[in-house]
Amino acid sequence: MRILVLGGDGYLGWPTALHLSRRGHDVGIVDNFARRSYDFEMGVDSLVPIQNLQRRVRTWEEVSGLEMTTYVGDLTDAPFVDGVLRDFQPDTVVHFAEQRSAPYSMIDQKHAVYTQVNNVVGTLNLLYAIADVDPSIHLVKLGTMGEYGTPNIDIEEGFIEITHRGRTDVLPYPKQPGSFYHLSKVHDSANIMFACRIWGLASTDLNQGIVYGQETEETALHPDLATRFDYDSVFGTVLNRFCVQAVVGHPVTVYGSGGQIRGMLDIRDTLACVELACTNPAEAGEFRVFNQFTESFSVSELAGMVVDAYPGRVEVENLEDPRVEKQEHYYRAAHTKLLDLGLVPHLLNRTTISSLLAVADRHRDRVDVTAVRPTVQWRSTASALATSGSPTTSKPSNIGVSKA
Amino acid sequence: MRILVLGGDGYLGWPTALHLSRRGHDVGIVDNFARRSYDFEMGVDSLVPIQNLQRRVRTWEEVSGLEMTTYVGDLTDAPFVDGVLRDFQPDTVVHFAEQRSAPYSMIDQKHAVYTQVNNVVGTLNLLYAIADVDPSIHLVKLGTMGEYGTPNIDIEEGFIEITHRGRTDVLPYPKQPGSFYHLSKVHDSANIMFACRIWGLASTDLNQGIVYGQETEETALHPDLATRFDYDSVFGTVLNRFCVQAVVGHPVTVYGSGGQIRGMLDIRDTLACVELACTNPAEAGEFRVFNQFTESFSVSELAGMVVDAYPGRVEVENLEDPRVEKQEHYYRAAHTKLLDLGLVPHLLNRTTISSLLAVADRHRDRVDVTAVRPTVQWRSTASALATSGSPTTSKPSNIGVSKA
Repeated sequence: MRILVLGGDGYLGWPTALHLSRRGHDVGIVDNFARRSYDFEMGVDSLVPIQNLQRRVRTWEEVSGLEMTTYVGDLTDAPFVDGVLRDFQPDTVVHFAEQRSAPYSMIDQKHAVYTQVNNVVGTLNLLYAIADVDPSIHLVKLGTMGEYGTPNIDIEEGFIEITHRGRTDVLPYPKQPGSFYHLSKVHDSANIMFACRIWGLASTDLNQGIVYGQETEETALHPDLATRFDYDSVFGTVLNRFCVQAVVGHPVTVYGSGGQIRGMLDIRDTLACVELACTNPAEAGEFRVFNQFTESFSVSELAGMVVDAYPGRVEVENLEDPRVEKQEHYYRAAHTKLLDLGLVPHLLNRTTISSLLAVADRHRDRVDVTAVRPTVQWRSTASALATSGSPTTSKPSNIGVSKA
Repeated sequence: MRILVLGGDGYLGWPTALHLSRRGHDVGIVDNFARRSYDFEMGVDSLVPIQNLQRRVRTWEEVSGLEMTTYVGDLTDAPFVDGVLRDFQPDTVVHFAEQRSAPYSMIDQKHAVYTQVNNVVGTLNLLYAIADVDPSIHLVKLGTMGEYGTPNIDIEEGFIEITHRGRTDVLPYPKQPGSFYHLSKVHDSANIMFACRIWGLASTDLNQGIVYGQETEETALHPDLATRFDYDSVFGTVLNRFCVQAVVGHPVTVYGSGGQIRGMLDIRDTLACVELACTNPAEAGEFRVFNQFTESFSVSELAGMVVDAYPGRVEVENLEDPRVEKQEHYYRAAHTKLLDLGLVPHLLNRTTISSLLAVADRHRDRVDVTAVRPTVQWRSTASALATSGSPTTSKPSNIGVSKA
């Protein structure tokens, strides 16, 4: 199968590309390196050193004997998207290529507008290009469980049967996204559903939970193949960040009461889920939604697991929640469709956390502790990005403050 | 009350501004004349001649003694939006300033992207500006009944109580919009709801039906005060278009079977509804939705009413439906909230249609019959805009084909 991975230089895109390559697929990678530029903007860096894309691909070829094609460009450039599809002729497009941080989207007006335009226009261009070049191309799109928010009823996989005043219909599941980033994914989902309806496109929307982990079977083959590992308050996901905090002796920072429950999954399961979606494609005209997570945890539970697993002492610090979200709520979400396709999950346990702690420990010298404290406030329309110097000092340097 | 009307030079924005002015409010108008530029792009024009904004405002002052402030600029220009709010200091912002044609959004990739970026970014900038300048400003936003699509259950006003697996919640009503334009309004609604939640903004989302009519009490006071009247297949709404077709001896063009049912309202009721929303504002943090229509009709029923009301003979021509939509479907939508606030509807009757026919007849010399046939096909990713010459001839001239 010919699979094009958009955003194939990113945290999940890169290991997904490797995984699909090793599983025998012809893989192409598209990236504009936006994720690397966010690091420059914020003055942070992946905890684990990563190589540039060209070297990654070269090393993969040396290690595995497998080639991958790369395309450098931006999905908001419609002729570029069209050209890449015509050149690579994929059977499947896996679309990771979006700004994927909720706090980043909430920095200020410019970052909100950038996030929505970048994500929505990129996906619109992709839909048009697929319809024009080859409508049989299966679009596997990364969405997020955060599109649903935390309703007081069970979350289903994309659609819900509603009986109302004696009549029944199956309708798109109502969404209550919690940031301008999450909203961009909701917009995407609605646009894609419509494109499937009018043009007969085939798409799978993967509403993914929060991913943890850094190593996969393929990235472990050579240090050059490592994927990024973010621990800062803007791009770092919760469990990764907790492990880094533990290792450097910083308190594990829980937002609010920590009662927020989220679906989560191991990075290796992301790879398996994406491959299952690719090899079991949606039909022409079908827009299907898989909830891509394996277990649910509250933030407090996660903090507790890190405290238990770490050999040293770890403090838990409950910070005022920078987000606007329910801290105590009902949460039960269906996630059977990927299991039905054969997913065998890696569940979160002490071993997983210990291996994450080991990754963090190996690179502890690279940790900038100022980057782990939340700086982006949902209630504010303009937050300063405080890095490279403690945000609590009156130091005039503000190179981390975004003027983008 | 100080009310800023965004898109105050448009079909509904202009008569709304006049109405609010005459009702004693201090009115400001913001427009970038995008609507007039679409006419140039497509080579069409309002059936009823309209004056430029400056002359309109001057004539209004002469006729009524009432002044209005005007601001020329674009909502996608964030500093402009911020500056206008700081200068005018409105209590209420009425937001009509979006690309509002479904066919226009479906012309091709560029028009789809333009529509979504223009509408979503303009509204995002407005939300940030309100939050920054004065979060107590009430945002009255024009949405559309088309956001809901045609579900097989009753449509409620924005939210629906769902009981699912023994639990109950009130959630945003599931949307099934039918064009990239309608999708842009759904995106807006979701963004606004979120802004109300995080910043405590107050907003009313008016999900408006299809508007018919051209004359209001205020526009009738002087020919310079006329609002536009569109009959072309891209911007003309269904009943207005039917009346023009009847008058020029063109068959009334029904798409498909004509069983499509839509909520509709008289232009005078639009004005009344907007004023009711302004004078009965949402509370801080409240996002409320009013379904703004008064009656539902199928397209066939509307065609039949025009046939009955026109003194001459009118043919009905069922064209292949250029849209992707259900032609026969259940349709029942709640619309009690504006009635509860005191709306007294103008219902559609023979007199209304006769007055529309009279408007069309008065300006029959200005009709370009080539503009009334649908040229934008939902199933195609690129439709040529055929005007200024019959699209069925092989004439090489294609000045109407958009390269925008």
